[in-house]
Amino acid sequence: MKKLEFWFEFASTYSYPAAMRVEAVAEKSGVQVLWRPFLLGPVFKKQGWNDSPFNLYPDKGRYMWRDLQRVCEKQGIPFNKPSVFPRNGLLAARIASRFAGEAWTPEFIRQIYRANFDLDLDISSPDIVSQCLVNLDQNPEDTINRAEHAESKEKLKQQTERAQQLGIFGAPSFIVEGELFWGNDRLEAALEWSGQLQRI
Amino acid sequence: MKKLEFWFEFASTYSYPAAMRVEAVAEKSGVQVLWRPFLLGPVFKKQGWNDSPFNLYPDKGRYMWRDLQRVCEKQGIPFNKPSVFPRNGLLAARIASRFAGEAWTPEFIRQIYRANFDLDLDISSPDIVSQCLVNLDQNPEDTINRAEHAESKEKLKQQTERAQQLGIFGAPSFIVEGELFWGNDRLEAALEWSGQLQRI
Repeated sequence: MKKLEFWFEFASTYSYPAAMRVEAVAEKSGVQVLWRPFLLGPVFKKQGWNDSPFNLYPDKGRYMWRDLQRVCEKQGIPFNKPSVFPRNGLLAARIASRFAGEAWTPEFIRQIYRANFDLDLDISSPDIVSQCLVNLDQNPEDTINRAEHAESKEKLKQQTERAQQLGIFGAPSFIVEGELFWGNDRLEAALEWSGQLQRI
Repeated sequence: MKKLEFWFEFASTYSYPAAMRVEAVAEKSGVQVLWRPFLLGPVFKKQGWNDSPFNLYPDKGRYMWRDLQRVCEKQGIPFNKPSVFPRNGLLAARIASRFAGEAWTPEFIRQIYRANFDLDLDISSPDIVSQCLVNLDQNPEDTINRAEHAESKEKLKQQTERAQQLGIFGAPSFIVEGELFWGNDRLEAALEWSGQLQRI
């Protein structure tokens, strides 16, 4: 079975529609999704940015929010502009990284994205993250403790370094058979590259 | 007849595939293209950049060249990475702006893009620009003189200011019924917005 690496960051706006649809689109094409959370902060810092480029460049930011709204409408995904942007997704990313192989993790990722970009909830809060875990019948205290373990922190850090080694400079990014694609609107191109795209 | 404003800059990489296909795609949808040359230099300067962001951010630049190659292949457009980037398209932009209403102008625009992104020619050179004009049965000396007239310079300057007033921050951009779309990959979305998209 061919594989699609899906590199995402919880604060990233266009990662939201990508995260919501990647599994359905890939599975329809017979391609397995490998979920790869990472942190954009260190990647942006390397480019000299201490904030999201959508905040640093207001015209670009204004456009992005409008475009994201249109994209979500077209995909039938609920969207409400978060009152805080970007939100810190570090805890959620550590969980998604630590429990990458678990059956509940893709739905956990989608719940965190919905909390941020639909329900306007503070995903940096352990309470909100716990609620998402409870919804999936996971023990929140135990899960968070294990995700905050030194080894788990190191795992996410290494994955972020790996992203940079792979030439990733933004999110979402897709890698299929060594080929890099950047942006929610490149998901279909990535699947075409695998020779597997089946349009829904 | 509905209208699509196509805002482009001759040095802009993704403006190349957009310029090559915009008229065919729009006409198929019964939408008229209004060609709007402008200069990215002043727009980028406002954002603190003295060079193309693809040069300032090497990872992004490396990705863009690869992605552009894939996009052009898919669209069946010849592409060869220019040996100089970005090239100065000021003279060509003045001509495209001064003679915006002429029947030969869209093909002149495409010839300049091909010169830059397929044939690797120096489009800042009056000789190359003249050759494109000769190919279209235009008198190169007369055309260039009129495009270099103070009024023509002012027209392009004002169009660049207008772009910024419209919230344009990059190229290519499309405006349809007051709605802004950014990027070659948003042409179809722009035509959908007009309610006119007919897929070829």
